[in-house]
Amino acid sequence: MIRLYHWCLDPAGRLVRLCLAEKGLGFETVESSPWAPHPDLKLLGPGAVAPALLQEGTGGRIVAVGTRAICEFLEESVEGEHLLPLHPGQRAEARRLWAWVEQGFEEVTDTLLTERVMQWVRRDRQPDSEKLRRGAHTLRGRLTFLNALVETHGFIAGRDLTLADLAAAAHLSACDYFGDIQWEAVPDLRTWYARIKSRPSFRPLLADRLDAVRPSPHYADLDF
Amino acid sequence: MIRLYHWCLDPAGRLVRLCLAEKGLGFETVESSPWAPHPDLKLLGPGAVAPALLQEGTGGRIVAVGTRAICEFLEESVEGEHLLPLHPGQRAEARRLWAWVEQGFEEVTDTLLTERVMQWVRRDRQPDSEKLRRGAHTLRGRLTFLNALVETHGFIAGRDLTLADLAAAAHLSACDYFGDIQWEAVPDLRTWYARIKSRPSFRPLLADRLDAVRPSPHYADLDF
Repeated sequence: MIRLYHWCLDPAGRLVRLCLAEKGLGFETVESSPWAPHPDLKLLGPGAVAPALLQEGTGGRIVAVGTRAICEFLEESVEGEHLLPLHPGQRAEARRLWAWVEQGFEEVTDTLLTERVMQWVRRDRQPDSEKLRRGAHTLRGRLTFLNALVETHGFIAGRDLTLADLAAAAHLSACDYFGDIQWEAVPDLRTWYARIKSRPSFRPLLADRLDAVRPSPHYADLDF
Repeated sequence: MIRLYHWCLDPAGRLVRLCLAEKGLGFETVESSPWAPHPDLKLLGPGAVAPALLQEGTGGRIVAVGTRAICEFLEESVEGEHLLPLHPGQRAEARRLWAWVEQGFEEVTDTLLTERVMQWVRRDRQPDSEKLRRGAHTLRGRLTFLNALVETHGFIAGRDLTLADLAAAAHLSACDYFGDIQWEAVPDLRTWYARIKSRPSFRPLLADRLDAVRPSPHYADLDF
């Protein structure tokens, strides 16, 4: 049995859901949002936050917290679809760009996503337009870099799908929910995203809905 | 032949040097500071920054950039001292806390280290005291958390040394160069640090000197 504590629009949780689905693993989900963390998290480890994975079975009990721990655990323990290449140099490149995505999008998530979500969680404030402006500027730079990568190789870290692609798609999909991505400025990235978005692993993410905010009109559209 | 592009006080480069030394690997170093990156870095990959490792030999040419790519590559390819446990659950915990250290100390490095170093690189400004105050506050919180971990287990992620310990020691040693750590407030962490500091892998870090700033008096003292 695998249980995942996550919040549906958190890019880190989205990466883990994509990884689990690409590996063909079934799992149950428990909601744990940033503003109301599930009480179980405290029991999983000191300072544990979502996404957190709990696996119980004949092999014992495994707790993995955070994308690095969870995705490497799944890659090491599950047969089937590889999400890191076999060649050491290509593995290093995939891990570099996976790390780049997570670090590079931190500010985007902290500004764009947090502002938009906290606006309706707290209900008492307008989003901070200066923060939104800064987040949008950072996002444009990141998109340009990713566009150049996929233009060269087809995927982010080479010719095959890796965790770097799933991490990038997880982050972009959360921004895309709010319509924050100007796709016409990054045509190669748009082609790449259409390809990733069509994978069966992506379907549950495209079905996610927040109570108070509808997604952008093209969010779930495979021919956006 | 292994070549490492790094800057001596950068915690990320320090983690890689510790990892290489713990694995018993010889390597040459090439200086690449944040304010004057080495021109070779551009050739290693789009957007590559230090620390970057280049390995050339009979097995071909491997480029690994960033701590996640480099340390996982060394762990996968080099026999000898393990820096991740063998049990999947313990591996996940070591990777969680390694990631926690890198994310949690980002603000500390961005404020304390950058302010102190940029002060003498630019020579035209005083450090920003508000930034130093914020950095010191963040650092205290991180130290308290690490102290609780080593008090429980002896090491950061359990009973054995892992990449989480080396990452934490790399960050603390850079702060300690400037005397920013109040060791008397975190006695268990001090005991742990004395133990790590005494390892042969740590000696080259304790010999590092910046041209313009001497280290704190106890920086290289094993009985601090």
